[in-house]
Amino acid sequence: MASKLDSLHPADVADILEALPLDQRLDVWELVKVERDGDILLEVSDAVRQTLIADMNSDELLAAAEQLDTDELADLAPDLPKDVLQDLLDNLDAQNRARLQSALSYSEDAVGAIMDFDIVTIREDITLEVALRYMRRLGSLPDHTDKLFVVDRNEILRGVLPLKLLVVSDLDAIVSDIMSDDAVTFHPEDIADEAAKAFERYDLVTAPVVDVNNKLVGRVTVDAVMDLIREEAESDMLSMAGLREEEDFFASVWKSVQNRWAWLAINLVTALVASRVIGLFEGSIEKIVALAALMPIVAGIGGNSGNQTTTMIVRGLALGQVASHNMQSLITKELGVALLNGLLWGGVLGVIATAKSAFTAVTCIKIIYYVKLRLHHGHND
Amino acid sequence: MASKLDSLHPADVADILEALPLDQRLDVWELVKVERDGDILLEVSDAVRQTLIADMNSDELLAAAEQLDTDELADLAPDLPKDVLQDLLDNLDAQNRARLQSALSYSEDAVGAIMDFDIVTIREDITLEVALRYMRRLGSLPDHTDKLFVVDRNEILRGVLPLKLLVVSDLDAIVSDIMSDDAVTFHPEDIADEAAKAFERYDLVTAPVVDVNNKLVGRVTVDAVMDLIREEAESDMLSMAGLREEEDFFASVWKSVQNRWAWLAINLVTALVASRVIGLFEGSIEKIVALAALMPIVAGIGGNSGNQTTTMIVRGLALGQVASHNMQSLITKELGVALLNGLLWGGVLGVIATAKSAFTAVTCIKIIYYVKLRLHHGHND
Repeated sequence: MASKLDSLHPADVADILEALPLDQRLDVWELVKVERDGDILLEVSDAVRQTLIADMNSDELLAAAEQLDTDELADLAPDLPKDVLQDLLDNLDAQNRARLQSALSYSEDAVGAIMDFDIVTIREDITLEVALRYMRRLGSLPDHTDKLFVVDRNEILRGVLPLKLLVVSDLDAIVSDIMSDDAVTFHPEDIADEAAKAFERYDLVTAPVVDVNNKLVGRVTVDAVMDLIREEAESDMLSMAGLREEEDFFASVWKSVQNRWAWLAINLVTALVASRVIGLFEGSIEKIVALAALMPIVAGIGGNSGNQTTTMIVRGLALGQVASHNMQSLITKELGVALLNGLLWGGVLGVIATAKSAFTAVTCIKIIYYVKLRLHHGHND
Repeated sequence: MASKLDSLHPADVADILEALPLDQRLDVWELVKVERDGDILLEVSDAVRQTLIADMNSDELLAAAEQLDTDELADLAPDLPKDVLQDLLDNLDAQNRARLQSALSYSEDAVGAIMDFDIVTIREDITLEVALRYMRRLGSLPDHTDKLFVVDRNEILRGVLPLKLLVVSDLDAIVSDIMSDDAVTFHPEDIADEAAKAFERYDLVTAPVVDVNNKLVGRVTVDAVMDLIREEAESDMLSMAGLREEEDFFASVWKSVQNRWAWLAINLVTALVASRVIGLFEGSIEKIVALAALMPIVAGIGGNSGNQTTTMIVRGLALGQVASHNMQSLITKELGVALLNGLLWGGVLGVIATAKSAFTAVTCIKIIYYVKLRLHHGHND
């Protein structure tokens, strides 16, 4: 079992852990080698990560964290106990400590929170041959390296040199002649979601992150962006159902109720409002009780068509397609749709209700006729 | 205006077109250079693409399509008029015609539909120096090339050689010694969504697509995967609101109603069922009309907590976290949550209803007392 776990990718081990109830999950977690703990903690969801960390002592946590890069540590840090985090910071060298502290200082939805520090830089005045020799001396490049960052001696970004240009260009060419100097760059304070859109739009694999002075401070990679897109989509889905956050599938009933109660409370308030409105018409309902039976239909159709419009507009706002210049025509259009829907479904409901009451009336007449007939028969008997 | 459009990235032009009402959109579309039409058609949404294509004649469409790669043509083909598509096929050389036809033969959610044919292959028995010389002779590599595909003379995939290994390794090394032979590969029939998950999981930038004989037929790139993830997330959002497809913001009212009616019709049917259930209790409602006012609260809380559970389970199924071995404990947990929610919100509602009726009773008593008092006074006057 342990050796089988060792042969699996951290993401696959994470999946197994997610799908297990708490006690079995911790049993499996015990079997995972210490040096892989860090990578797996990065892959599991926040909720599951907390259950795993709660089961580890400080030494185990420190050992796991030591296997990670600074940017990975930054992802893990918010879930670590304070004393472990302090020990970690003490163990880091000055550069990495500064990086970790700055990464932790950005808000969760800023580019600074998703950037990493695996940057390979070269100077602009060397030939490609020299650059290639430098690469070979490095011996390996970080994952996702699709471009080298060209900087001057003050780490100011001058341009980027894609690997695919490096390998096809003449070896005697100078870096500054080959590099592209209009690369898409980000600032650590930029909104991560905007950066993600730029990645999709311009089909990026990595992009440099620079400070206000254009000094290179890190990079964003497409895998971090993809994780972000997936997380955003999921949190949109969850919040549409009023779930506050990703829920550990095997969280206690009590924890689940805590995650879900706020939305239900809001709903209770709106439902109370609806109930007051209905209260205004108690007189009418008292006269025709069938009206009460028609209420859920009106509420359902109204709610759902409103929901459709909301979804459309929210999506348009997210994509930047709704702006002041087209507001007028959008409102006109949605009012038109609402009117048509109202006529259509009101009509359908009217036909159904009429048919039903006509049916009732016919039944009544039949019964009266039948009773009459019986009476008549009775007379004749 | 036209020159400003020329300086923009196709994705940015697409955004502008999306945000314009139909007549203005077509005016701007006229200003776009013919050779850029194809790229922009690829970037706009399906709904907007149809409005643009409807405005172009066959010659314009052919000219636009000629600028595109085979895999891009395949994305566009379903929206093209039949005769234009036939002309296009006739103009292609044999290899590209075969590729386009095979790309069109895969279902929309298969890997075959998102793969492209921009593959650079090398042999395994050459040195890296020879490989680099070959690259330099090619002069350029396709976008997103992060690895070369190593094939034998029958195009059978032997392994992959990441560019980042190519640039750091010894020039005298043989490709087969450096390449990795356990790369993640896909088949054209694989489900695209599964491939997307593998891209996220294993942090891929490109991956080879092979047929049953392991013959290389194409590749999948991370930008296609990102588009897929975004589209899936959006279509999930839209279908949660019962919208059948992405809607052109400036579609006619009638088109919008067509997009939305099916969900509303389903809703009408379920609401009719709810109305029948309420009909069963007409007797009780007739006695206590206040019950009618409480109905939306019961329906609201019930519907929303059900929605939360559904969202959780659907998400779990999508992530593969719900399986037969944990079904039992999930059902127990959700029943627990339901019980707790029922007690909680039932209790809250009970308190509110009691308070309200107590308030009414107190008001009644006050009125009676007041009337009595008045009568008493009247007597005394």
